[in-house]
Amino acid sequence: MPGKVMPEGFYRGKRVLVTGGLGFIGSNLVRRLVGLGASVTVIDACFPDQGANLFNVKDVLDEIILVVSDIGSVDEISSYIVDQELVFNLAACTSHIGSLHNPLQDLERNCVSQLLFLNALRELSPQTRILYTGSRSQYGCPVYLPVDEKHPLKPVDINGVHKTTVEEYHRLFDELYKLRYTSLRLTNIYGPRHQMHYDGQGFLNWFIRQALSGQDICVFGDGKQERDFLYVDDVVDALLLVAPDERCEGEIFNLVSGIPISVAEAAEAVSDLTGTKWHCIPYPPDRSLVEPGNIRLDGSCLQELLKWKPACDFQDSLEETIFFYRQHGRRYFQNRRNRVVLTKKGPE
Amino acid sequence: MPGKVMPEGFYRGKRVLVTGGLGFIGSNLVRRLVGLGASVTVIDACFPDQGANLFNVKDVLDEIILVVSDIGSVDEISSYIVDQELVFNLAACTSHIGSLHNPLQDLERNCVSQLLFLNALRELSPQTRILYTGSRSQYGCPVYLPVDEKHPLKPVDINGVHKTTVEEYHRLFDELYKLRYTSLRLTNIYGPRHQMHYDGQGFLNWFIRQALSGQDICVFGDGKQERDFLYVDDVVDALLLVAPDERCEGEIFNLVSGIPISVAEAAEAVSDLTGTKWHCIPYPPDRSLVEPGNIRLDGSCLQELLKWKPACDFQDSLEETIFFYRQHGRRYFQNRRNRVVLTKKGPE
Repeated sequence: MPGKVMPEGFYRGKRVLVTGGLGFIGSNLVRRLVGLGASVTVIDACFPDQGANLFNVKDVLDEIILVVSDIGSVDEISSYIVDQELVFNLAACTSHIGSLHNPLQDLERNCVSQLLFLNALRELSPQTRILYTGSRSQYGCPVYLPVDEKHPLKPVDINGVHKTTVEEYHRLFDELYKLRYTSLRLTNIYGPRHQMHYDGQGFLNWFIRQALSGQDICVFGDGKQERDFLYVDDVVDALLLVAPDERCEGEIFNLVSGIPISVAEAAEAVSDLTGTKWHCIPYPPDRSLVEPGNIRLDGSCLQELLKWKPACDFQDSLEETIFFYRQHGRRYFQNRRNRVVLTKKGPE
Repeated sequence: MPGKVMPEGFYRGKRVLVTGGLGFIGSNLVRRLVGLGASVTVIDACFPDQGANLFNVKDVLDEIILVVSDIGSVDEISSYIVDQELVFNLAACTSHIGSLHNPLQDLERNCVSQLLFLNALRELSPQTRILYTGSRSQYGCPVYLPVDEKHPLKPVDINGVHKTTVEEYHRLFDELYKLRYTSLRLTNIYGPRHQMHYDGQGFLNWFIRQALSGQDICVFGDGKQERDFLYVDDVVDALLLVAPDERCEGEIFNLVSGIPISVAEAAEAVSDLTGTKWHCIPYPPDRSLVEPGNIRLDGSCLQELLKWKPACDFQDSLEETIFFYRQHGRRYFQNRRNRVVLTKKGPE
């Protein structure tokens, strides 16, 4: 279901690298790129606690080059990153709560690996364009709404700190070495191919997991916290538009739907579509630590520059997501049963 | 030469930890603390390319506990960080230019070590107060003058990025775990006990090194770039005042003299006091990368809160510094000859 992209045929034959390409956003992007005729290389570390899932790309596996490696393992990846025209740099550990439980791991997987990767890129692919994905969590608790790109960065967890550190690496490598980049700060993304084996990322998808597993949906707090949910197809549209656009070079943009929906409304929607119940429970102590409160981002900068708006309807997209997991749940729900990691063997 | 400090006797018997305590600011602070009767523990990694010099604390060595270890080596330092009442967390690699030549080393020595250290502190000394020293370089090129604490953080080098990352760790550990901290962002500090074996840190001290070595003083560019020079004795005064002050908890302050002096004027002053010449040369390419242009910081927040001002006169302090290196130059000028590192043997 391709949405608006660059001029027809733009991606045909383009050499494109997607880091984290077996994960949620990465794999949705990879599938679209393959459909557009790009020559796609995927690097993914397949950390067992993250979102990589070979099933995500099973039906395009013959059409991509897949490198199972950390992006910081420069020796392993160097021959694959030469002369890439575009790099979608999505590889990241993204769990807020996980970063508090293991801050050093978050530092190593995000900052250390990204610094090594960018250093290699500037030598081996200096002419490339990089699209980095930052996060809403970089802002922390809003001091004003909606949060624009100039809002202070005071994240409430270590992962949010590291997202900014890595974004800063991109800015510096652009300014110092002309390694061109754009950063998109994403909000709550949902949709097919999100990991469903633990609840540390993407709570809307986790609601679906609870519902389809026959459990009640658990909402932390009173559910009145507002979020900005963006469907992964819209994200892929935006990534494809922004990455090659010279007007976006060196810039940082929020990427949002612009439609605030409360957590309770989201739970209610999943509940309606699946026939399950939902209820509120108090925040577990570690969760309340990383709760930023109501948050609404201003995405007008990017939308005005590109004359682009998210196209996907929340209800329809949620239904599509639920349909996907009804079909393929067993590939995602069983903890790591069907996750082929670090073995380089073929898909199931 | 103690300046204003906390109420008479405040530091007597206080258990105080100074990380980076063999370095420039650290050792000046340690000597003052010993004079005030504090019970001082020093942890210093003694990285050969940084500022540690055992001669800096030679005459107070019997009165301190000295641990030669990286602050990230938690097993080695853990017994020394228990129950410290105050921590002056000065350990850092501070070279801007060095961080571009070896960004990963800068990441490991600053972010990795500090994250491990703070994690250990919150377990072993959760009641302590931390004074962290940030840097002017966190701001990068000013978008307005004078630069106050709300100015955007866009450093021009990797070290500046990491200074902010580590400052953010402090903020987060305060917010999440009540590990109280204050951050002081320092400008160009000069004075006795600064390393003099390479030119990657503290160019005013390097001017003195050039002059006392019989060389011309080399100024990069036209010398019109303005800086804010602060004498190390003033810095020590401020550290001693701020660290235990509850009004400063959780806050970030610029620490400056407030008197802009151009690089050429500084060279001229050293020239006058030493009878050497100075001249301008073009920026070496790697230096121009990290040159932030004119920069003037607004230090009024801290000065108004504490009713405190730097007390040291530039000319007098420069003379004092030159006098120190005339006396002790051979302990600093000869590359590492008299630097006792990682051997734990006594001072010369």
